Amino acid sequence: MQGSGRKIKIVEVSRLTTERYVNLFKMTYMDKEDREKTWTYASRNDPPKADTGYFATPDAIIIVPFHEASGKLVIIKEFRIPLADYLYGFPAGLLEDGESVEDCAKREFEEETGMQLNRIIRTSPPIYSSSGLTDESIVMVYATCTGHASDGGTGSAEEIETLFVSPEEARALCARQEIRFDVKTWLVLYAFGIDGQL
Amino acid sequence: MQGSGRKIKIVEVSRLTTERYVNLFKMTYMDKEDREKTWTYASRNDPPKADTGYFATPDAIIIVPFHEASGKLVIIKEFRIPLADYLYGFPAGLLEDGESVEDCAKREFEEETGMQLNRIIRTSPPIYSSSGLTDESIVMVYATCTGHASDGGTGSAEEIETLFVSPEEARALCARQEIRFDVKTWLVLYAFGIDGQL
Repeated sequence: MQGSGRKIKIVEVSRLTTERYVNLFKMTYMDKEDREKTWTYASRNDPPKADTGYFATPDAIIIVPFHEASGKLVIIKEFRIPLADYLYGFPAGLLEDGESVEDCAKREFEEETGMQLNRIIRTSPPIYSSSGLTDESIVMVYATCTGHASDGGTGSAEEIETLFVSPEEARALCARQEIRFDVKTWLVLYAFGIDGQL
Repeated sequence: MQGSGRKIKIVEVSRLTTERYVNLFKMTYMDKEDREKTWTYASRNDPPKADTGYFATPDAIIIVPFHEASGKLVIIKEFRIPLADYLYGFPAGLLEDGESVEDCAKREFEEETGMQLNRIIRTSPPIYSSSGLTDESIVMVYATCTGHASDGGTGSAEEIETLFVSPEEARALCARQEIRFDVKTWLVLYAFGIDGQL
């Protein structure tokens, strides 16, 4: 099924902005019919991954926290600036330089919920958030957790509420059209609502 | 659990780039302690959704195509410029002006695989790809499909291979660390690998 022509080749990647956390890049490439084209996308990396070939480390981790004592998943409701509203999502955060995926998950989970991660159940490979728009990748960290929710100790941009979600509550939440849901959280909660499993 | 101070208020949103399909925006806002801050993010909309309040229409649709005759899911392997490599993902596409979610799903699926969508099983609400980075939202369209895979009839930037995935094959694919996977596709295939259900 592959196209029979030559493969796509990258000519250059140029940065269009000079922001701190995310920038826009324009990639010039030759398509498989040897025509020059461009593709514009966002990256948290400068230079972006296509330029360095450094895809092994994810940009962020997403925690799927299973509270064994109650049989519920823990999610957060958090104000997100680009949405100008609250988002229902899993605790998450950007990986710091040299930090392991597991350490990042434990740190972010405690910061955002005041609870503790215990046993790591499994982790995903680095997987890509929206690959036409960005080279951002994340790792999903499924883990058990304990403790009681408290306000996170984070900066004032973060207003975080912690919610415990049973399979029945997951089904009800996933059906609500009026709330803003993170993609990953909606998909995991939908499956959790069917059988209560991760 | 809500912060006790005032709520976050948007002051202004300014566009940093003048690209066709995606731009970078900087939002200035007052945090809950009344300090001025900024947040930079990408949007496919100009002005972005936080400026217009127009969140109801998704940017893109993602098709989860279930091939009833074989009991397999259909995914594609497609070259993605920002990843400089092939990505395993579901067929997907941007919603055109005035197009319904169902019509977009049928059009994109046929363009990308040469197959046909039949019955829509369910659709998700608009859900958010990565809400710290972008206001992009997508709708998941679960549907049955028929037909045989052929090269898509799309432009030369798209080299698309169609794959049929059984629950056993889904488990094997999800465990492979060396391939690049779309987040949504990895999560749906993981769940499909457990029980063969959607």
